[in-house]
Amino acid sequence: MKIIGIVDTTFARFDMGSAAVDEIKQYVSARIIRITVPGIKDLPVASKKLIEEQGCEIVMALGMPGAAEKDKMCAHEASTGIIQAQLMTNTHIIEVFVHEDEGKDEKELAFLMENRAREHARNVVDLLFKPEKLVKQAGTGQRQGFEDVGSLRG
Amino acid sequence: MKIIGIVDTTFARFDMGSAAVDEIKQYVSARIIRITVPGIKDLPVASKKLIEEQGCEIVMALGMPGAAEKDKMCAHEASTGIIQAQLMTNTHIIEVFVHEDEGKDEKELAFLMENRAREHARNVVDLLFKPEKLVKQAGTGQRQGFEDVGSLRG
Amino acid sequence: MKIIGIVDTTFARFDMGSAAVDEIKQYVSARIIRITVPGIKDLPVASKKLIEEQGCEIVMALGMPGAAEKDKMCAHEASTGIIQAQLMTNTHIIEVFVHEDEGKDEKELAFLMENRAREHARNVVDLLFKPEKLVKQAGTGQRQGFEDVGSLRG
Amino acid sequence: MKIIGIVDTTFARFDMGSAAVDEIKQYVSARIIRITVPGIKDLPVASKKLIEEQGCEIVMALGMPGAAEKDKMCAHEASTGIIQAQLMTNTHIIEVFVHEDEGKDEKELAFLMENRAREHARNVVDLLFKPEKLVKQAGTGQRQGFEDVGSLRG
Amino acid sequence: MKIIGIVDTTFARFDMGSAAVDEIKQYVSARIIRITVPGIKDLPVASKKLIEEQGCEIVMALGMPGAAEKDKMCAHEASTGIIQAQLMTNTHIIEVFVHEDEGKDEKELAFLMENRAREHARNVVDLLFKPEKLVKQAGTGQRQGFEDVGSLRG
Repeated sequence: MKIIGIVDTTFARFDMGSAAVDEIKQYVSARIIRITVPGIKDLPVASKKLIEEQGCEIVMALGMPGAAEKDKMCAHEASTGIIQAQLMTNTHIIEVFVHEDEGKDEKELAFLMENRAREHARNVVDLLFKPEKLVKQAGTGQRQGFEDVGSLRG
Repeated sequence: MKIIGIVDTTFARFDMGSAAVDEIKQYVSARIIRITVPGIKDLPVASKKLIEEQGCEIVMALGMPGAAEKDKMCAHEASTGIIQAQLMTNTHIIEVFVHEDEGKDEKELAFLMENRAREHARNVVDLLFKPEKLVKQAGTGQRQGFEDVGSLRG
Repeated sequence: MKIIGIVDTTFARFDMGSAAVDEIKQYVSARIIRITVPGIKDLPVASKKLIEEQGCEIVMALGMPGAAEKDKMCAHEASTGIIQAQLMTNTHIIEVFVHEDEGKDEKELAFLMENRAREHARNVVDLLFKPEKLVKQAGTGQRQGFEDVGSLRG
Repeated sequence: MKIIGIVDTTFARFDMGSAAVDEIKQYVSARIIRITVPGIKDLPVASKKLIEEQGCEIVMALGMPGAAEKDKMCAHEASTGIIQAQLMTNTHIIEVFVHEDEGKDEKELAFLMENRAREHARNVVDLLFKPEKLVKQAGTGQRQGFEDVGSLRG
Repeated sequence: MKIIGIVDTTFARFDMGSAAVDEIKQYVSARIIRITVPGIKDLPVASKKLIEEQGCEIVMALGMPGAAEKDKMCAHEASTGIIQAQLMTNTHIIEVFVHEDEGKDEKELAFLMENRAREHARNVVDLLFKPEKLVKQAGTGQRQGFEDVGSLRG
């Protein structure tokens, strides 16, 4: 049975990890290992440990960067580390970040955090079980959390 | 037979991968392996896996970063990862990014995405089969997608 | 007995390392190794040496970036290095930075530096001894130094 | 005989590689291997391959970043990769970049590109053959392409 | 006998390397290896070679980034590389940068460059010979080149 890792944070204001776990379970049978770390800068090493110490074949790293300038920099550092962790392990880590200022109020923000987690969970399932499905969607303007924008009208 | 990897995204709004595959086939006989990932931040590890797990001798990584400030940062992170993946494998990964705000409308953007993919496909062919052709073009102001600007009139 | 590393700086204006050591001792029995370096850019290698040469299973890296633009860049470089050190060792290094401009006066800044050091010390204890406690707090808007903001009211 | 690598780009608008080769030949006997890549982001891996696959003991990486904001970011990514390539090989790669907006017109830009390439070629010769010459110039305000500014009048 | 590496640049406008060497000799007996490179971006690999090829147990990397925006970016790239070099070698490299715009005139800039080099030379001596001295200074607001700011008055 394939093993999927899920790591999220105590800093975020919505339980994205549970949404991701729930979504994956609706599509496939897989062993899911879930952990939580304090903040997004702890996600890179946590993801790498899930891969190398727990045998995960793919990982979702979920977080909610704050709205301040300093938080944008944290998100950049976390993203850079997540990419580096992937290169060191030859394993996909799907980053699911929702910036705190992406929603116009708490309700929309919660909606966005849940939906983006769920839509990326489906990407994770496709990458692991049906990668050819993604090739069929190449260049079609897929978005996670918001509505898809579609292909260009050339 | 040489193996060329092509990886693009479902986020992009034009099927750059197919344009690249089509162009390469007009010039050389090579085995082409094509995959698609959700977004540009997934390109570095996907490219590295094409090289290390599928034997690709060169890879094209195609994507369309969005127009928002946050998207510029994603493009920077993806580019940094693509360079790192090349250094870890001693293999060229030709990055083909068209920023969503480079075209004045959808039609021009689609034109640019197709043309840049095709022109870089020819660079990939040259790098792999005729690297000496590039030396002859050193310092001649080549551009991909837009018209070449040429050498300086000193 | 588990070994925890603590590294702070002579540049900071509050002895964050001692606060962290004191807090950890209130919760668990662990061997603590403490060192101090000149500035935050010296934290990444110091942390890595604590892990690889002293056997630390987790490290706290504490510092106070200055308020100038140049100092923000130093903090970014230090953070990037701390993430990289974690990836090279598969070991958590909890970064505890308080920016000099986060407090409205010296008193508030000292308060913040002590509290953030202590609250992150508890995160370190949880990560090392009771990681399942953090999963229960996933998405609950925990903050260190300031009051928690809580979950979104969706 | 020592081997020196030269890599430049088809994007640049002046043939910096030829200027560098010509300058080196006026000073020393060395085997020179020259290649050309499409753009500056291709320089890091090209330099590393010259070192590891062709035996180069030092490399010059020459390029002309464009004037747009996006081009500045490309230059940053390329420079970061060039430093990384050096660290992975314990070999100097002398970066010679002239930004397209450094010259007030095409003539001055061409002048600057040629001169900076030539002056850095002499640095390459010194680093490889007479490193003690550089120690004598420590802190003397050397510039490449523009006039030297000299030591501070303390 | 312990070996200390010193690397500075021909770009700087004050001979920081000599000041550092002179200061170290007043405090300890150590073998000092000194080299000079063209600019600050050459410092990371030069430092790493001093460690891995010359056996240095600690290195000082001294430089003077210019005042332009482009120079700030160079300093950032150099600093990132210096941190990376430390992580690859588990060895401290003490970065001593004085930005050209830190002094109000040439005299003050020269004063600052000499003093920061000397004060950091004493940090190098402490790190190598008496690391416990630094722990006693934790959180005391030490500065190099300028006057110390001291601990916060909480």
